[in-house]
Amino acid sequence: MIAERMLVIGLGLIGGSLASAIRQSTCCRTVLGSSRSAETVSKAVARGVVDRADIELLPLVDELQAGDVVVIATPTLSVRIVLEQLRAAVQRGVIITDVASVKGSVVEDARAVFGEVPATFIPGHPIAGSEKSGIDAMNPQLFLRHEVILTPLPHSDRQAVDTVSALWRTAGANVSVMAVEEHDAVLSLTSHLPHMLAYTLVDTLAQRSQNNEIFRYAAGGFRDFTRIAGSDPTMWHDIAIANRDALLQGLADFEQHLADLRNAIRDRDGSHLFEVFSRAKQARDYFGELYARRKPGSQ
Amino acid sequence: MIAERMLVIGLGLIGGSLASAIRQSTCCRTVLGSSRSAETVSKAVARGVVDRADIELLPLVDELQAGDVVVIATPTLSVRIVLEQLRAAVQRGVIITDVASVKGSVVEDARAVFGEVPATFIPGHPIAGSEKSGIDAMNPQLFLRHEVILTPLPHSDRQAVDTVSALWRTAGANVSVMAVEEHDAVLSLTSHLPHMLAYTLVDTLAQRSQNNEIFRYAAGGFRDFTRIAGSDPTMWHDIAIANRDALLQGLADFEQHLADLRNAIRDRDGSHLFEVFSRAKQARDYFGELYARRKPGSQ
Repeated sequence: MIAERMLVIGLGLIGGSLASAIRQSTCCRTVLGSSRSAETVSKAVARGVVDRADIELLPLVDELQAGDVVVIATPTLSVRIVLEQLRAAVQRGVIITDVASVKGSVVEDARAVFGEVPATFIPGHPIAGSEKSGIDAMNPQLFLRHEVILTPLPHSDRQAVDTVSALWRTAGANVSVMAVEEHDAVLSLTSHLPHMLAYTLVDTLAQRSQNNEIFRYAAGGFRDFTRIAGSDPTMWHDIAIANRDALLQGLADFEQHLADLRNAIRDRDGSHLFEVFSRAKQARDYFGELYARRKPGSQ
Repeated sequence: MIAERMLVIGLGLIGGSLASAIRQSTCCRTVLGSSRSAETVSKAVARGVVDRADIELLPLVDELQAGDVVVIATPTLSVRIVLEQLRAAVQRGVIITDVASVKGSVVEDARAVFGEVPATFIPGHPIAGSEKSGIDAMNPQLFLRHEVILTPLPHSDRQAVDTVSALWRTAGANVSVMAVEEHDAVLSLTSHLPHMLAYTLVDTLAQRSQNNEIFRYAAGGFRDFTRIAGSDPTMWHDIAIANRDALLQGLADFEQHLADLRNAIRDRDGSHLFEVFSRAKQARDYFGELYARRKPGSQ
């Protein structure tokens, strides 16, 4: 038994999938859920994702005791409002974690709400998701063999870290630990920047007059981009704002490299093009094996 | 019977796959192949991709008669050298087509070599491929339910167009006809631009000092990009040079949109971000159904 009770706030793709995985595992006696949508609450109960759920958060929080776990699985910029409703729980020694894609903004939120980040608040981020969203996309195997990054602070409670870690492992994930700043820098490049590029490309082309032809003859490259651009706009709006500084750096770096490539095409500088394409292919071939060991098509 | 003989010049992914599909169909009595690599020639014969193959092109060309078909399946910028070796065949009424991703440069090449584009030269482009290349990646089902675009000129021979079209249909493809300029404009956006973005992103990140972390925690977005960036550098070098003008236009347009997005992130202009992401998602959802009807993972 990892915890008596787990309360998941936000029953979308990530929250719903985690609740379901933990409930199936029986490592928590009771899995509770909360959503602002009555329809989501009904579906979560009807499909056995949770034992009980409610659109009212506070009555559920009132049930929690020391050692119980709250998972905040709402969009990044909503974490602060949720934290404000967890003051009493934090005082009772309840462990809190979250799943937001940006950790710096969440740590700032916790500091703003509590004065200091509580020792039992362990920020986390599952590198799993897809262009689908909502409870209908819920899948208890979503985290199987996926990476989950926890970003505890120096004063974080060791036992709280172990508890959160054990929950994710139960859901099948590999858990690793990273500093908050490092997490946000790495993810700004591997996830946030690519999404900005995909959204921009699809939006640029959708505005072209011949867009029917464009989408009809979409070759592999573009189709992969359109898939990413199907992701939830609210979630990505929040991420872009919350990880603003790291993302702006990544964008500036990318834009410089793209301008260099454009100049090489303009100047018919074939050797520059060949060098860029070959270096990229080498990197891909080197790391490709790593990806081949993970689930195909997963994020 | 579509033609007595088909000769495929260049036995890589595309040439090898087409030769193999046509040979299995028995719509040509003899399928001949040519490659500059002795190893590829041996493999093509040993695996039954062709009836016969040779590293010497001219003896094979000498066998061809009126109504036979030559498919040039070499990288885009090599088409011209190959065309120069097909003068005698053109005079005998042999039909010629190609598979290059850029059609304007190929038409220019034909004009330069023959004075005018021969009526029996029918430029073509199968929208099929993958990040894999070479005869080892050959797959006779590669073209199944994929689009092939032919770009005949006003004076092109109707029967030659029908013959080339019939060959592709035999390989399972949907054939459509488009003007040369339209093809190059559409493909510059749907295929060539996305490849430039993917190559640039992967190359940019591979140069970062923390690149082990970056590639390890690659989320879905970035992994799709790295897959595209695994494509053949020579092929993409040729495409970038051959479709320079259309690609430069597409890049300029994309760079402007990306700068707008970067400014919105800098200014914390949430409504601009939400609009871009929502428009892109709408376009993706609208066209997504089209893609769902094609083979998953195909290009």
